[in-house]
Amino acid sequence: MRDSLRSLKPYRPPEAEGLALHRNTNRWGMNPAAQEMARLFAEIDLSGYPDSEATALRRALAARYGLQPENFLVANGSNEVFDLVFKTFLNPGDAVVFPSPSYGMYRHYALVNAARPVEVPLDADFDLNADAILSVDAELIVLCTPNNPTGNTLSVGSVEAVLRSGRPVVIDEAYGEFAGDDWIERVGEFPNLLVTRTFSKAYGLAGLRVGYLAARPGLIEQIERARLPYNLNALSQALATAALNEQAFMRDYVELIRRERLRWAQALSRRRFRVWPSQANFLLAAVPQGLDRDILVRQLADRRILVRSAGPHPRLQRCVRITVGTPADLEALLAALDEVLPCR
Amino acid sequence: MRDSLRSLKPYRPPEAEGLALHRNTNRWGMNPAAQEMARLFAEIDLSGYPDSEATALRRALAARYGLQPENFLVANGSNEVFDLVFKTFLNPGDAVVFPSPSYGMYRHYALVNAARPVEVPLDADFDLNADAILSVDAELIVLCTPNNPTGNTLSVGSVEAVLRSGRPVVIDEAYGEFAGDDWIERVGEFPNLLVTRTFSKAYGLAGLRVGYLAARPGLIEQIERARLPYNLNALSQALATAALNEQAFMRDYVELIRRERLRWAQALSRRRFRVWPSQANFLLAAVPQGLDRDILVRQLADRRILVRSAGPHPRLQRCVRITVGTPADLEALLAALDEVLPCR
Repeated sequence: MRDSLRSLKPYRPPEAEGLALHRNTNRWGMNPAAQEMARLFAEIDLSGYPDSEATALRRALAARYGLQPENFLVANGSNEVFDLVFKTFLNPGDAVVFPSPSYGMYRHYALVNAARPVEVPLDADFDLNADAILSVDAELIVLCTPNNPTGNTLSVGSVEAVLRSGRPVVIDEAYGEFAGDDWIERVGEFPNLLVTRTFSKAYGLAGLRVGYLAARPGLIEQIERARLPYNLNALSQALATAALNEQAFMRDYVELIRRERLRWAQALSRRRFRVWPSQANFLLAAVPQGLDRDILVRQLADRRILVRSAGPHPRLQRCVRITVGTPADLEALLAALDEVLPCR
Repeated sequence: MRDSLRSLKPYRPPEAEGLALHRNTNRWGMNPAAQEMARLFAEIDLSGYPDSEATALRRALAARYGLQPENFLVANGSNEVFDLVFKTFLNPGDAVVFPSPSYGMYRHYALVNAARPVEVPLDADFDLNADAILSVDAELIVLCTPNNPTGNTLSVGSVEAVLRSGRPVVIDEAYGEFAGDDWIERVGEFPNLLVTRTFSKAYGLAGLRVGYLAARPGLIEQIERARLPYNLNALSQALATAALNEQAFMRDYVELIRRERLRWAQALSRRRFRVWPSQANFLLAAVPQGLDRDILVRQLADRRILVRSAGPHPRLQRCVRITVGTPADLEALLAALDEVLPCR
């Protein structure tokens, strides 16, 4: 077995049944573009291979962002985007650096591609420390903004400082639609900037597995060497293209999240959770003093309310990550909490 | 850029328009299971992530082959299966050995994963030379049977000799349904045997991108470390599962191919092509003496008949690979040939 895999366990997402507040998917349901499936489906001959260049989808992305199709690469989820980027920019043993706490899969992408993951702490506010990141001799830098699981955006000035190093920088904007920043707009400005986004969050299509990467055409062309042909199936291409034409659905959902996440934060604060400010569709919250985080997560799961433990990171040991859902979801969560929490 | 990528060009499949006899897909059309799409679709909430374990599909595969779900891993096409296998069994710089001529992507999978591809010639009949393969100090062996692009199966005795070495051996049975052999039945017998198959050929669902791997559970578990979660989208999982219940469609197609490929071979032989015996849904054929292969391929493409050049391999320089299609496809091919070929 590849040596770097020895420390890896298979990643098995929890498959518990219940109200899914643990995956940051759209709780208002799937994109209405999906209802065009029957029509789209009549136009697709699945006996043939899909368009290996995903021409229609890349054109739609270009139109959405005012860029060119050559600025985009599409793949089977952001997972495949990252796999391709790591394969392209890292020789075996090379270091890839990313802040901590952040998205746990960056370490996974590194190990499966025989690269060396290096974590650098975020500062006290979970913001980026550019000097600390740049002090690592790494061939690739990965930044997540809004950051998962902390929910904050990284300050623009610090990200710019990292970009000015000239090293390849991936900005993971999986939750970018929920925040004000948009790094895709700036790919023309920084020749070393790669931005990845997804249809799994704001577009409500996690089941499709479509992610995309925006960068200067020269960078995209390098990554194309690692991409295997026909990497995105025909149905996902068609539906993602249709979803880009449903911007109203996405914008309405983003508006709902901006309003609801404040209500959710207030409701949790009233129950003595510490809630961090969020620019995403989820909240990071520390459980009330005196309670055990893991027991609380289990008690909620027993009531079919699934929230995500923020894991063993020293700064997050009391924290959970909760997807902002519908008003009915909030009622269900609060009812369960009121059963579980000690009397106030 | 990763050093091993420098010699790679992006793989861009030819996107010419015309009668597709160049991709070995099902020319009789897509699996009737696809017509259940509307019904299946009503049951799938695309706003949520797909089942990361592809439980239903792996159960259906287990039932089809009389094995256990733990014997199977499913992925986004055989491409992803190979990527995962190469990541699992090869440290950077390790050798992977495969016969030549064979499927061109094995070299690609090796280079993107920083491994070292080693080619060993097939013998005069395009059969496997087990001693030659085993003389290479390689961590992984890949065999394709029926072999692409030569169409023959590798002799069972030689494959068994390779398997008895104990090294991990992948048998690529992308065209396995068209031949008599079935190596999946033997995964219990050889602890080092990995067999990959696809829904793109016999099942008529290339647009879905679903491939699968069969092996002992212990081997599957190793590869699970490299697999990223949610690697197969929900629609492809549902349709592939439905297609496994349409065995009659697949078997009828295989019967058609077995009958038609003989007619196609005879028709081409009468036009002075040299045609090799095939156990797949395509034929390897050398163009008539005195003709230039590449000119002929272009002349056919000008008439919207797409056949595939067998590439620059020294033994295949006069060869094309032609997908066996419908009787109407054969008529169209012959009409074009009769325009293009010199008077007989």
